[in-house]
Amino acid sequence: MTVPILAKTPGTPLYVEVAERIAALVEQQTFRPGDRVPSIRSLSRQLQVSINTVKEAYGLLEDRRVIEARPQSGYYVCSRLPELPRDPRIEAREIEPTGVSIAELADRVMRDSERADLVQFGCAIPNPELLPVARIGRMLAQEVRRHAQEHVAYSMPPGCARLRTEIAKRLLVSGCTVRPGEILTTTGCSEAVFLALQALCRPGDTVVVESPVYFNFLQQIQALGLRALEIPATQKEGMSLEALRYALDHNRVRVCLAIPNFHNPLGSCMPEERKRELVALLAERGIPLIEDDIHGDLGFGSERPRAAKAWDRDGNVILCSSFSKTVAPGYRVGWMVPGRYQAQIERLKMVTNIASPAPTQLALAALLANGGYDQHLRRIRRIYARQVAGMAEAIGRHFPAETRVTRPEGGNLLWVEMPEGIDALRLYARAMRHGMTFAPGPLFSAAGRFRNCLRLNAAFWTPELEGTLATLGRLAGEMQGDRAS
Amino acid sequence: MTVPILAKTPGTPLYVEVAERIAALVEQQTFRPGDRVPSIRSLSRQLQVSINTVKEAYGLLEDRRVIEARPQSGYYVCSRLPELPRDPRIEAREIEPTGVSIAELADRVMRDSERADLVQFGCAIPNPELLPVARIGRMLAQEVRRHAQEHVAYSMPPGCARLRTEIAKRLLVSGCTVRPGEILTTTGCSEAVFLALQALCRPGDTVVVESPVYFNFLQQIQALGLRALEIPATQKEGMSLEALRYALDHNRVRVCLAIPNFHNPLGSCMPEERKRELVALLAERGIPLIEDDIHGDLGFGSERPRAAKAWDRDGNVILCSSFSKTVAPGYRVGWMVPGRYQAQIERLKMVTNIASPAPTQLALAALLANGGYDQHLRRIRRIYARQVAGMAEAIGRHFPAETRVTRPEGGNLLWVEMPEGIDALRLYARAMRHGMTFAPGPLFSAAGRFRNCLRLNAAFWTPELEGTLATLGRLAGEMQGDRAS
Repeated sequence: MTVPILAKTPGTPLYVEVAERIAALVEQQTFRPGDRVPSIRSLSRQLQVSINTVKEAYGLLEDRRVIEARPQSGYYVCSRLPELPRDPRIEAREIEPTGVSIAELADRVMRDSERADLVQFGCAIPNPELLPVARIGRMLAQEVRRHAQEHVAYSMPPGCARLRTEIAKRLLVSGCTVRPGEILTTTGCSEAVFLALQALCRPGDTVVVESPVYFNFLQQIQALGLRALEIPATQKEGMSLEALRYALDHNRVRVCLAIPNFHNPLGSCMPEERKRELVALLAERGIPLIEDDIHGDLGFGSERPRAAKAWDRDGNVILCSSFSKTVAPGYRVGWMVPGRYQAQIERLKMVTNIASPAPTQLALAALLANGGYDQHLRRIRRIYARQVAGMAEAIGRHFPAETRVTRPEGGNLLWVEMPEGIDALRLYARAMRHGMTFAPGPLFSAAGRFRNCLRLNAAFWTPELEGTLATLGRLAGEMQGDRAS
Repeated sequence: MTVPILAKTPGTPLYVEVAERIAALVEQQTFRPGDRVPSIRSLSRQLQVSINTVKEAYGLLEDRRVIEARPQSGYYVCSRLPELPRDPRIEAREIEPTGVSIAELADRVMRDSERADLVQFGCAIPNPELLPVARIGRMLAQEVRRHAQEHVAYSMPPGCARLRTEIAKRLLVSGCTVRPGEILTTTGCSEAVFLALQALCRPGDTVVVESPVYFNFLQQIQALGLRALEIPATQKEGMSLEALRYALDHNRVRVCLAIPNFHNPLGSCMPEERKRELVALLAERGIPLIEDDIHGDLGFGSERPRAAKAWDRDGNVILCSSFSKTVAPGYRVGWMVPGRYQAQIERLKMVTNIASPAPTQLALAALLANGGYDQHLRRIRRIYARQVAGMAEAIGRHFPAETRVTRPEGGNLLWVEMPEGIDALRLYARAMRHGMTFAPGPLFSAAGRFRNCLRLNAAFWTPELEGTLATLGRLAGEMQGDRAS
């Protein structure tokens, strides 16, 4: 077979184009699982690109588990992944604000995440072996010596100036032009989101979120006495803007909270055009957008996706993020760009806990300034891409037929939809007895959705864990049997 | 003159008894300012104590600026301090809950505290030259190396176990027997108090506070949509329990927030019997006490005062503190003993910002474990005692007649009551033009009290600052003239 010659798209590296072309042919089932793809030499001839370009393209496809090399034989299409989860049906009667009460379940899952005796498929914690532990530790020690007085003093809001300068520089790749003075450092991304919610909302207000939604958002909404209005989100496009429009037409909404890049738990990345539309839709109705971009640096593609904030014209978007997923969760270094709400959010930060710790902010600033962060990101993104794909395949092998799983475009999370009738909460109890945790679907909805779903953390995935995952799949299968009997 | 022989009180060092006896004679004006007190040799004979005991006693009295040595001449009573502030009149019609709106003034005072071009009499920040900067920095670097993986990981609530163990050990001197598992680490004492208020109160609830009250408490009350009910406090006894009883009889109070030890701004230490009474009074009415003990380790006396928590029988007292005043404000290492509210406060902490940073907690744990903290405390307490007394005397020399000032028993703050009609807010604007800050009295009341008062931070006091303080006194005097003209 032949592959047509490429029309080069400006801005994309050639090897990525080659890889995407092959991936598309696999997706369309032109090449099917087990098929041999063209050899490096023949593809290079067909596409009139260099041998090295094809090698790089095939390397990328291997990372993404689209193809695999078989020694002495060539490259083959990997075994097929389970289907994508079904897109949600969008039913008007379900787009209603709800009170939240998932506290005890969330508490339990968070606490189980600290148990060293369990295989941690549960919380979205990064794999410490993939973090630059020694380097950030050295930076911390060095900065403490260099800035002896500063490191013990209050780093009053907006926070450590050196760190804010480095963050402002990096924000360019997210499409945002922001001055250091517009950035506020926080104790993790969670605090940034909490400050935004608390500054903007009064008890009883309604907050729009994606469905499924990162469970700590639901807990924050509960703690502040707010109500959640869940808008269906899909793997391909993120939050449904059609459903959002409907919800805004029929409800008094105070604020919208979303994760456009590498959504937790879906792993979806909202297309740029949809981000623009989301920002415009909210701006014209005067509803602020709180954007969580915590996984934004962990994309599997060649380019970092822009933040929705990039389309913000009037300070209506509050961008929140942190280095907890990429450098050190325990440093609790987060930040936000509060936009037009800067004064009130800074004041709330000061009132709540005066300031965030200085030493860890100084260490992060040094790491960002002295390079190594981008190199580290390239490594960790590549590894997570491989682990996520490997774990998804293993789910295909071991979970009941009809199980569906996401294809994350970044981060380290998988969202699994099991056949109807398998109860993730009951499965959680059984899985714990077999020494593993996961995050049950009902955690991700205040409205009681996703009983047959679960979120898995692929950050610790290795082929050695296949047996553990197989046990989980078997337990799920047995529960399907339970119901039939 | 003769001094009667001492009846030894069990538990108090002899030299402290001697010092207190002389101080009492000065207080009663038996010895008046400028009088010579007995020589060391003659007092030793009179009291039948050793020469060294008298020397130690006179050292203590010198630190407290009760007496001063004049070379070749002996010891003399120091020039007289201004009067104590008047005890508040307790008027029933004033004991009413009020909304709070001091945000802009507080914001301004906090921000001015960062300006290096100003003499900092304003915020209650410690003097960095009195902090163990090099030692805690070394501890931080050492712990990062020792606990490489732990220092980058989430230190999930209740927080760093090593630190909680050290805090539990130290709590014995505060009269509290608490297990490490009952302690929750926080991002500073402010976060501890905020978590307690947020977990216990719903918008519209009433919080009892002392009057004057630390202004960040008022801001927290405002941020949470609560109301403040200010109970007059005196230099000698702290919060008036009579007024409190009246307030509780006539209002629906949700929680009481107080600083029994070394009150901010009064510097008062509630007598033990009153603490016991406070705890009992609140317990019998089922009203939780949030106790801020942040200055508890900074007393000028020979013994650390017990926390009110020491009299808590049923977990009704929530004890909050931090190392921000004693070791490093920028580390933001605080803690609380949430008592019977532990589960809900821990959950709120997790929801708000997941966890506090690990590295600074590890460093504090090492400092507490390896000693040096108590030695450091002895030094800083002695220095603050001297600075507070020196600054109070200078106020006596330079402020308008009739100005009154507190005699703090710990901490580093002075509360100044100027003659009626001198407006502290107008004085603040003028003082800023002369390169200095202070905390104006109206910051310390939601009910608009204390217009003629101000709080001064003595942490940076040196005799070289006498000129600056004299300018402040002169400006105040001119304003008195303004009114008269």
